Amino acid sequence: MTLVIVKPRKGIVPTESRRRMVESAAILLATRGLDGTAFSDVLEHSGAPRGSIYHHFPGGKDDLVEEAMALAGERALGVLDAVVGQPPIDITQRFLDVWRQVLIRSELRAGCAVLAVTVAADSTDLLDRAAAIFRAWRVRLADLYIQGGMAADPARRLAAIVVSATEGAVVISRAERSLEPFALVAEELLALTPTA
Amino acid sequence: MTLVIVKPRKGIVPTESRRRMVESAAILLATRGLDGTAFSDVLEHSGAPRGSIYHHFPGGKDDLVEEAMALAGERALGVLDAVVGQPPIDITQRFLDVWRQVLIRSELRAGCAVLAVTVAADSTDLLDRAAAIFRAWRVRLADLYIQGGMAADPARRLAAIVVSATEGAVVISRAERSLEPFALVAEELLALTPTA
Repeated sequence: MTLVIVKPRKGIVPTESRRRMVESAAILLATRGLDGTAFSDVLEHSGAPRGSIYHHFPGGKDDLVEEAMALAGERALGVLDAVVGQPPIDITQRFLDVWRQVLIRSELRAGCAVLAVTVAADSTDLLDRAAAIFRAWRVRLADLYIQGGMAADPARRLAAIVVSATEGAVVISRAERSLEPFALVAEELLALTPTA
Repeated sequence: MTLVIVKPRKGIVPTESRRRMVESAAILLATRGLDGTAFSDVLEHSGAPRGSIYHHFPGGKDDLVEEAMALAGERALGVLDAVVGQPPIDITQRFLDVWRQVLIRSELRAGCAVLAVTVAADSTDLLDRAAAIFRAWRVRLADLYIQGGMAADPARRLAAIVVSATEGAVVISRAERSLEPFALVAEELLALTPTA
């Protein structure tokens, strides 16, 4: 017997309820972590009809989580499009702004969906997806720093510390329910970044 | 009716099975996150007798998780005792060594228990405890930097970025199952730290 696993076609037009489920999963991952993002939580949060979830995500929860992480990943990348060709300091500032807004809008209750999945995942596929997003951020930042005039090696090292320190600072600000740790780290990262 | 919640007495001599349960919980939190650290997981990992867990942790899972976080917090602080009075660069190196060892010994499967709890906690008590540990690390590092000759403000900012960037780098190295992101960030943090 041959078992055929049918994957959803790439490029399929997402329906409204599917889009809402992915959006809700991204919010829940960022707020409650991987185990706080069960299908039942996503249905409740999105208001999508119960029957629709296995239709849209036949691979189960991991499919939905992968898409939610991808959404979070693309959003952070998309925000950086506005600073292409600008000096490194503007690039760092923009990346910090993304995460400051996540903290402020959630009243310090949300952080990074990709980080939350990494620390609770027991699937190599999910870790691979998380790794690809962290890497995409790092590579994109480094490219923008290089376009902004930095040499390749310092640009790569700066990108690595900006992503790591921002991720860590978001978690610590959530724990403390205070923007202060994030603000201190942001100040240091800006001090590390060439102004032109 | 008055409901009396009996808390374990402070300073009570921990039994061997209690100690093993806290140790196991710390390992499971660091490896699988908060929801991968159910009482049943802790019993299986520690080999402690089933009946003992509510005896030792009458407040339930949160009691055990708080103690496991405290253990992780104290270990990282304890390791810093060896570098009291040394130059800032040795302090940063020592803190990085703690986390490099966590990654290496676990074959990149474990990270920080305190971070894992923060991103999945729905209890203010757990967040308070996590915040206190992050703050204790930051304060201790800053004090050691000051003893090592740094002025107070730069010492505090350096401590904040060392803790944040190390936390973030540990997560990213776990996702990528590679020490490389951690090594890049470690190099940058050492470059930021005064050598004497």
